[in-house]
Amino acid sequence: MLGLGGSVATPQEGITAPVLVVRSFEELQQRASEARGKIVLFNVPFVEYGQTVAYRVRGAAEAAKSGAVAALVRSITPFSLRLPHTGGMSYADSATRIPCAAITVEDAERLQRWQERGQQTMVRLKMSAKFLEDVRSHNVVAEISGREKPDEIVLVSGHLDSWDVGQGAQDDGGGCLQAWEALRLMHQAGLRPRRTVRLVLWVNEENGLAGAKNYAQRHRSELAKHVLAIESDSGSFQPTGFTFKGSEPARTVVEQIGSLLEGIQANQIISGGAGSDVEQLAPAGVPVMELKVEASKYFWFHHTAADTVDKVNPKELGQCAAAMAVMAYVVADRPEDLPR
Amino acid sequence: MLGLGGSVATPQEGITAPVLVVRSFEELQQRASEARGKIVLFNVPFVEYGQTVAYRVRGAAEAAKSGAVAALVRSITPFSLRLPHTGGMSYADSATRIPCAAITVEDAERLQRWQERGQQTMVRLKMSAKFLEDVRSHNVVAEISGREKPDEIVLVSGHLDSWDVGQGAQDDGGGCLQAWEALRLMHQAGLRPRRTVRLVLWVNEENGLAGAKNYAQRHRSELAKHVLAIESDSGSFQPTGFTFKGSEPARTVVEQIGSLLEGIQANQIISGGAGSDVEQLAPAGVPVMELKVEASKYFWFHHTAADTVDKVNPKELGQCAAAMAVMAYVVADRPEDLPR
Repeated sequence: MLGLGGSVATPQEGITAPVLVVRSFEELQQRASEARGKIVLFNVPFVEYGQTVAYRVRGAAEAAKSGAVAALVRSITPFSLRLPHTGGMSYADSATRIPCAAITVEDAERLQRWQERGQQTMVRLKMSAKFLEDVRSHNVVAEISGREKPDEIVLVSGHLDSWDVGQGAQDDGGGCLQAWEALRLMHQAGLRPRRTVRLVLWVNEENGLAGAKNYAQRHRSELAKHVLAIESDSGSFQPTGFTFKGSEPARTVVEQIGSLLEGIQANQIISGGAGSDVEQLAPAGVPVMELKVEASKYFWFHHTAADTVDKVNPKELGQCAAAMAVMAYVVADRPEDLPR
Repeated sequence: MLGLGGSVATPQEGITAPVLVVRSFEELQQRASEARGKIVLFNVPFVEYGQTVAYRVRGAAEAAKSGAVAALVRSITPFSLRLPHTGGMSYADSATRIPCAAITVEDAERLQRWQERGQQTMVRLKMSAKFLEDVRSHNVVAEISGREKPDEIVLVSGHLDSWDVGQGAQDDGGGCLQAWEALRLMHQAGLRPRRTVRLVLWVNEENGLAGAKNYAQRHRSELAKHVLAIESDSGSFQPTGFTFKGSEPARTVVEQIGSLLEGIQANQIISGGAGSDVEQLAPAGVPVMELKVEASKYFWFHHTAADTVDKVNPKELGQCAAAMAVMAYVVADRPEDLPR
């Protein structure tokens, strides 16, 4: 059992209460009268991250509205070896800030089975999670200055921070390395594109996006000349292409460039949101992209003690770096600007 | 980190010593002079269980011969989510009984990397594993008495005990259920074969085979009339057939019966050893079998906290039970004896 970001510490002696297991927010609403004074467990099978993670993010607030004294969340993963997955959560201003923790899929299923056979289970929840004061930290920035238009910028990036239970090798150490490698490959090949290629390793993606928000603020006068911002934050697996959010004319260009990656089957361009950090630049009109990869195992490791470097296949990491390097280099070097 | 069966408890304050990581017994021999006073870690990648488990079984004894103060073993698994795997081990009479524990694949690989970059790592090993006094326990036996030759016995079995870190759902709860189901299916279908079909749920497979050894002793006068003994102890996955150890004429019969299971692709008969329990009956001439299954994931769960009931696919469990029921029923009901 692990604390989640933003959780309120429980008293030293813990909270002991009966557990109510629900499969959805709808079931909680139907059984709201049973939730009062209990620990509500959201035992929701993984369907798709964006959908299932709502229970980690909003579970405590929804449980509190029904009078629960704490919330538990089944770890957000399609596969478990008795491993809890942590991650961000938030409270509602209108609801009591009750403690919230993630438990393993196996333990959630066991509590479900006990409930279904009519057994009332008491849970003792003891956590030591707490917020510390913020400390000063930094994005890491490096660049190859453009040979013709050094003030125009193609940004490649990953995020430096990770959940402390593991090493953050997939989320997002590999993304940082890919972006770093993209610059290193250009440098090694003696390539200096027309525009500047800037590497940014974002700090604090997981817990508030302070690095990206700060960048968007400090560099706001340059954002009109940010031609494209790419992030990799879906792990270092076999690359399949990129998401893209920008104008249709820009998309056409990006698809043409993507076709250069057909040889490694990384040529798909999918409309849709990009990594959380580069999304902070989108409101200023910056076209944004995220590297997409074969994603079937990413959430096996995500936000766990098992997100370790042995999970990264060096060949796949290299292919990701190559895909990012090609996209960044060609956009940075083509004579025409990427249309906004 | 988990204690292994048979480990000697460390002192309350633990053992603190530098670690020496080796990839094989051969490497330990080459570096024997470095091992003295150290904690030796066997970081051996999983190849095949029978081969790799030698490091869990003999690692402590081999390390002790080189003067090591404790042994660590990389968990015996092809895939890890930071989960330690426990299991049996043994000491050599000629070597000091040093403590021994399993660590995760990830942690073993990390210690290897640190060693390879020239870093000396201190490990503090603190364990509370100990032997308690044996207590009386029992095999569970049930049978459908044969309608013509009730003194001739076809035995179906699994083992009741498991490593206490998990539930033992795959090792070997499912095997017990399969054997139980084989009898239940016959009973439900109103089938009473010529010979007796006896269910045995063995106790103490994991830690000395006391149940099977006791059975072999107490029932020794009946063993000449044990026509066949089947065990399931490789998990409840898609069945592929059976191993068989017995005479060539018997093997021919068993292959013919196995062909009845072609419809569920469970018709392979492979020469080779059977489950550890029924192997105790083999010296008396009893032909023995083990149900074989699609085994790619069994060792992901084996001897861990993740060997829980959610890992068992009910359909696959049912197919295993069907395969065992068919084999046991036909051998028990055919007019001719199974040749020895």
